[in-house]
Amino acid sequence: MPDLPGPNVSKSSTPAKDITRRGFITKVGQGLVIANVAGALLKNASAQQPILKVPDPPGKKVGWAVVGLGNLAINQILPAFAQCDHSRVVALVSGHPDKANKLALRYGVNPKNIYNYENYDTIKDNPEVDVIYIVLPNSMHAEYTIRGAQAGKHVLTEKPMANTPADCQAMIDAARKANRKLMVAYRCRYEPFNQEMIRMARQQELGPVKLIVADIGFDIPPNMWRLNKAMAGGGCLMDIGIYALQAARYISGEEPTEVNAMSYTTPGDPRFKEVEESINFQLKFPSGILANCSSSYACAWRSHFRALAKNGYFELDPASPYTGQQMRINRGDRLESPYIQPRDHFASEMEHMSQCVMEDKTPLTPGEEGLRDLTIMMAIYEAARTNKTVKL
Amino acid sequence: MPDLPGPNVSKSSTPAKDITRRGFITKVGQGLVIANVAGALLKNASAQQPILKVPDPPGKKVGWAVVGLGNLAINQILPAFAQCDHSRVVALVSGHPDKANKLALRYGVNPKNIYNYENYDTIKDNPEVDVIYIVLPNSMHAEYTIRGAQAGKHVLTEKPMANTPADCQAMIDAARKANRKLMVAYRCRYEPFNQEMIRMARQQELGPVKLIVADIGFDIPPNMWRLNKAMAGGGCLMDIGIYALQAARYISGEEPTEVNAMSYTTPGDPRFKEVEESINFQLKFPSGILANCSSSYACAWRSHFRALAKNGYFELDPASPYTGQQMRINRGDRLESPYIQPRDHFASEMEHMSQCVMEDKTPLTPGEEGLRDLTIMMAIYEAARTNKTVKL
Repeated sequence: MPDLPGPNVSKSSTPAKDITRRGFITKVGQGLVIANVAGALLKNASAQQPILKVPDPPGKKVGWAVVGLGNLAINQILPAFAQCDHSRVVALVSGHPDKANKLALRYGVNPKNIYNYENYDTIKDNPEVDVIYIVLPNSMHAEYTIRGAQAGKHVLTEKPMANTPADCQAMIDAARKANRKLMVAYRCRYEPFNQEMIRMARQQELGPVKLIVADIGFDIPPNMWRLNKAMAGGGCLMDIGIYALQAARYISGEEPTEVNAMSYTTPGDPRFKEVEESINFQLKFPSGILANCSSSYACAWRSHFRALAKNGYFELDPASPYTGQQMRINRGDRLESPYIQPRDHFASEMEHMSQCVMEDKTPLTPGEEGLRDLTIMMAIYEAARTNKTVKL
Repeated sequence: MPDLPGPNVSKSSTPAKDITRRGFITKVGQGLVIANVAGALLKNASAQQPILKVPDPPGKKVGWAVVGLGNLAINQILPAFAQCDHSRVVALVSGHPDKANKLALRYGVNPKNIYNYENYDTIKDNPEVDVIYIVLPNSMHAEYTIRGAQAGKHVLTEKPMANTPADCQAMIDAARKANRKLMVAYRCRYEPFNQEMIRMARQQELGPVKLIVADIGFDIPPNMWRLNKAMAGGGCLMDIGIYALQAARYISGEEPTEVNAMSYTTPGDPRFKEVEESINFQLKFPSGILANCSSSYACAWRSHFRALAKNGYFELDPASPYTGQQMRINRGDRLESPYIQPRDHFASEMEHMSQCVMEDKTPLTPGEEGLRDLTIMMAIYEAARTNKTVKL
């Protein structure tokens, strides 16, 4: 930080306004803060602070429509656009006009760009919209992705991609036919701690990985749409077990060839009339890596990915929340907890999609990636149901 | 601590020797140490130090014979007798007289009480020996336990109890017929951190346990007897997977009803010509608790037991080494790492056995407990071999 003129209020004959600006020194980098003027004057002074980078006004950015204004959209996705250089929200799609209007005001969305589920297809006539982000319940991903692609838009859809592999395939086909990009919002793939896990595994920093342990769960409140089989497609596996499955796949860098599974649902628990409470699954990968994974809707929140390699292990605990990841590395003779600069996961994945659109590249997590997970999850359900290993 | 006379060296006419003794005060309990005499005098003074508890000389203690003088016996078991109030080593059984003589000298064992494998049965004529501790390779546990019981001695045998359930049953039958006690050396059951895990699970301190994750492994050096199937009975499951199985059983407090398993052995690795390299297994318990366990002979050392309950989780990491256990408790809103006073595991389990002998009680981990594990381990092997869930 460049040095600013020193405080000289009492000695100089500088006019009051000048004093105000020059008489304020902040040396945050050196841990030194001197304020010799009243707090009320700081507002003026801050205009000259060289450490503040004012973001560029919206120029040529990729325009996004957010479809479905639930908790995730309101609390994570819409605020994340403030962290984006290449992505801006330009349209909202919702069945609740009041909610949409309020959010449009907050995020600077032109009211003419508010759609509902009836006029959703007319988004094709809106050149401001480049990408549609589907944040609806799982069962609606396929329909709104396909209609989005047919409207000529690129689509980012939340996970799981759909409730069946057939739906996933239809989504892939629709995007291909429309020559539009399709990406699945596998947030952790764009998150720096998980990326560091992948790097360490690929570079065999602690030797080859032999075992992956991935556990995720929370105690689900009643009456969520996630407990409705038609909407959610299944229980904890579809919603959160998919993170453990993803972790096993992206840490190993391989596709599983065999699956075992064991499931349990408490009889009489009113939450689990339609979907499973807990499901544990085992995977075998071609190189011999084994994975032990678990997911549950009936225990305290936890999210833990551990990769056990020949010379040590490395882990994230917690692994998949929106913020707060922590990494530990056991090198055999010492335990390390590296500092990794966090990033907004949603901003990162949206920026990736925008860059793929601008540069005509395939996303890191295209529709095919979502289809792979659905295929494996169906095998996990089959293994649990039949009490047999399912080969993939 | 009783008050001692105050320092009065300069004022009194007490003879020098008396001064030496009385002029030294230690109030460790109150954090106060006053030494008004030269350091050279402390040696005499210490004879009166009330804080030093000099252990009783060997009186009526249970007499132990240690059979098999390998690494575990030399480095863990023999030194542990120094921590015992009720157990003392009085005999050694070994095929190597030089080693036995050396250890007898070190641990005060009468040379006449050194046996070899040929004259082992004559131990029946030695009234000093009450308990025999079998620290031989797995395949020898059954024979030496049975011969020990037939010699009229109580037996503590290392884990796994034997290589087959049939051998376990024969050991139980022999002990019963001889009216002698039989215990399996499940060290962790006598270890305070594991005991705290059990207490927290039983008292449902964080609500009912829903999932148990237990991982254990190390990178085995070549040429160990543990890699010889005839001696070891199997690979990592028999040697260390048994700890994960035990943990799942003693944390849940239940017996599994179903088992899945998946195994992997690197083709061409010369260590694994006869036994498995890695095996992962899943258990289902009657209350609905699921367990995901893993064991491996091909990755870095690790030992981790985690119990996931409704309102939080608690874990040991590491869980099963001879020393150095650490516990973490996640209560949902805070992470705690309680201090628990460590104890010598081997001394604890030997003391338990001695007390059972003195008070004519059944050990916490009798032969039946070892048989249960063997039966389940055979089911785990069957599940891995057949690719099917095995019901127990």
